[in-house]
Amino acid sequence: MLDNQPTYIFTAEYLKNFSATVFMHFGISAEDAAQAADVLATSDLRGIDSHGVARLHTYFEMLELGRINPSPNIRIVREKHSVATIDGDNGLGLVVAPKANAIAMDKAEQHGSGWVSVCNTNHFGIAGYYPLQALKRDLIGWAMTNTTKLVAPLWGAERMLGTNPIAIAFPGYEEPPIVIDMATSAVAYGKIEIALRKKESVPEGWIVDRDGRDTTNPQNMIDGGAQLPLGSEKDSGGHKGYALAAMVDILCCVLSGANWGPFAPPFALRQEIPERSVGKGIGHFFGAMQIDGFIDKDEFKKQIDEWIRVFRNTKPAPGTNGPLIPGDPEREAEAIRGKEGIPLIKPVVDDLQEMSRKTGIPFEISYAR
Amino acid sequence: MLDNQPTYIFTAEYLKNFSATVFMHFGISAEDAAQAADVLATSDLRGIDSHGVARLHTYFEMLELGRINPSPNIRIVREKHSVATIDGDNGLGLVVAPKANAIAMDKAEQHGSGWVSVCNTNHFGIAGYYPLQALKRDLIGWAMTNTTKLVAPLWGAERMLGTNPIAIAFPGYEEPPIVIDMATSAVAYGKIEIALRKKESVPEGWIVDRDGRDTTNPQNMIDGGAQLPLGSEKDSGGHKGYALAAMVDILCCVLSGANWGPFAPPFALRQEIPERSVGKGIGHFFGAMQIDGFIDKDEFKKQIDEWIRVFRNTKPAPGTNGPLIPGDPEREAEAIRGKEGIPLIKPVVDDLQEMSRKTGIPFEISYAR
Repeated sequence: MLDNQPTYIFTAEYLKNFSATVFMHFGISAEDAAQAADVLATSDLRGIDSHGVARLHTYFEMLELGRINPSPNIRIVREKHSVATIDGDNGLGLVVAPKANAIAMDKAEQHGSGWVSVCNTNHFGIAGYYPLQALKRDLIGWAMTNTTKLVAPLWGAERMLGTNPIAIAFPGYEEPPIVIDMATSAVAYGKIEIALRKKESVPEGWIVDRDGRDTTNPQNMIDGGAQLPLGSEKDSGGHKGYALAAMVDILCCVLSGANWGPFAPPFALRQEIPERSVGKGIGHFFGAMQIDGFIDKDEFKKQIDEWIRVFRNTKPAPGTNGPLIPGDPEREAEAIRGKEGIPLIKPVVDDLQEMSRKTGIPFEISYAR
Repeated sequence: MLDNQPTYIFTAEYLKNFSATVFMHFGISAEDAAQAADVLATSDLRGIDSHGVARLHTYFEMLELGRINPSPNIRIVREKHSVATIDGDNGLGLVVAPKANAIAMDKAEQHGSGWVSVCNTNHFGIAGYYPLQALKRDLIGWAMTNTTKLVAPLWGAERMLGTNPIAIAFPGYEEPPIVIDMATSAVAYGKIEIALRKKESVPEGWIVDRDGRDTTNPQNMIDGGAQLPLGSEKDSGGHKGYALAAMVDILCCVLSGANWGPFAPPFALRQEIPERSVGKGIGHFFGAMQIDGFIDKDEFKKQIDEWIRVFRNTKPAPGTNGPLIPGDPEREAEAIRGKEGIPLIKPVVDDLQEMSRKTGIPFEISYAR
C-alpha cells in the first residue's frame, strides 16, 4: 500500500489536530472541524490511507476557492417518522454526513429504524465511519454515497457512475463487530493509480479504455477510459455490480435531489465539472436499525459471535489462512497504528507542509523510517 | 436457457391454476394457494424458469412428507413502529413472504419505512416478486433471503452461504420501473447445472472443487465443491460478494432467529439436513420506503425516468447495444410470454403430469413446438 517509499510516522492525534486546525482556518467551527478531522484520522488509523489526511489538501483547495461552504445551515427538508431528507447546504461531507447519520440514529431509537437521504453535500470520507458510530449506540448502521464518475455500467464505454460504496456494520458481544465497507466497482481507484506509478499492468476485469475495450494498461483508463463494476464482465456478474452502483446512486441522489450518475460534481479541482446539473451537490444515504425492535439485543450479539466463530473455522482454500470476517483488516491496522503511529509517504508530507506554510499552522516531522 | 430441448407451451393462467389446485390438495387455503401460485407464475412470466412451476414438484414433495406446514399461524414476534420480526410457523415461503412483505409496506405507509425480518419460513420464489408488490403501492421495495448453502466465502474451501439474493425496485413515471434482483454469488446455480448437462466447462471464477481449488469442471462443484461469491477472486472483489452474502444472511437470519450460514435447512428432499440447528427455518428480510417521506413522489418518478434515459444513452461498448436498465430482460420476457405463453421443457412437464396422476388434478398438454 505504501508502495515501498520511505515513510514518516505521526500519531493519529497529531494529524487529527493539524487537520482540525486547518479546517478552522477556513472559518469552520471548532466542533465541526474536530468532527471532520475525526473522520480523516479514523481512516488513517484503519489503514485506508487514500481517504485520510492524504486527502486534506483536496478539501483545502476546495475551501480555499470557496467551493465548499464552511458554515452550512444543515436542515431537514422533509421527514416522516423513520425517514428524512437533509440539505447539507454545500458543507463539507465530513461535517454534513455525521449530522445526517445522527438523525438516522435518533430516528432508529425512536421509531425502530431511521433512513436519511442527503443532497447538497460533498465527499464524506470512508463510508465505514458512519456505521461505526451506529455501533457505539448498539444499532445496525448503514451508509452509502455517490462519487464523481469513474465506472462504466456493464456494456457501456464511458464513465457514468461513481465507485459508490456501501457500508454496514453489526455489533458482536465478545467478538469485534462485523464491518462491511466496499466500493461497488471491481477495485478501488487507488489500485489503478499504484499500478500506473509502478508502470505495471492491471489484471483483466478492472478497466476498459476510452472505446470500452478491455485493457490491462492503467494509462488507458486514465485517458478517458473507465473502471468496471464489481463482477467485471457479463458472465462473471458485471451487471450485478452495475445494479448495486445504480441502487446507491438512486438512494443517495434521486431520493434526495442530488446530482446522480455522470452529473456528480467533482471532488477535487483537477476533475472536470459536468456540463449538466440535475440536482444539488452529491448525495449520501444513511440507515440505522434498533436491534431490540427485532430481537433481544444480547441474543443478537451472542449469535453474531457464533456466526463469526463458525466462519473463522471454515476449511481454508489452498494457500490461504481461510476466510476473514469483514472488518478484520481495518481492525488489525487500527491496533497496530494506534500503537506505532500513522505512516505517511513523502508526497503526502509535502502537501501537509505546503498547507502549513500557507496557513501558518505548525507542522513538524517527527521521525522517518 | 431452454437448452435447445423441445418445449411445450402453456398460458401462465393455466399453470397458475394448476399450481394453486395442487397447493389446495395439501390443505392450503384457497387464498394462500392462489398467492403461492402467483409467485411461481410471475417467475415463469418473467423468464426465470428455474423458480417457476418447474419448482412445484419440490414444494409438492416437502408438503407430501409434512415438512412444510400447510396452515401456518404467521405471527408478529416483536415490533416497534417501523420494524418487526415475523415467525412464519414453517409455512410455505410463498405464503409467509407475501404476508411479511405486506406488513413492511403497511409500516412504510404509516411510519415512512417498514423493515421486517422473518424466521421459520421456507423458500420464497424469486426475490424480485416482493419489490414488484411495493411498486403497486408506489413504494420503494426491498427483499432478501438466505438459501441452502452453496457458496464458499472468499478463501474458504467449503459451502458456507446460500446464493442469498438482494432485490430492490424503484418506480418510474412514464418509463418502466428499475427492478434489481441479483444473487450475491458470481452466477446462478442453474448455469452450472446447464453446463453439467451439456458436458461443457464453465468460465474461471464460478466454482471451486472440494479442496477449494479453482476449477472449470462443473462436476467438481457438484462433488462437494462450492460456488464462488460475486467478484470471484480477491483481486477482482470476491471479498465484496462474500460480504454482501454475509449481510443478507445476518439481516434475514440472525436478526429474526432463523438458521444462518451453513445451517440453513434444505429446500429440496435431495439436499442434506445440516447436523446443527441455530434457529428456526430459513430467513427473509423485507423493506419498504415511502417516497413521499423523502421527496415529492412524482418529482422522484420523473427523475427516475430521466436516469433511465441517460443510462440508455450511454456510449455502447464494442459488440453490445449498450447498457441495459436493471429489470429490462425480465420485462421483455413478460411482454413476450404474456402473449405467447410459457415454454416448459419435457422434464418439467413430466413432473407436472406425475403430480397430476398422484392428486387426480387434471393437467393437459396443450401444444408443443
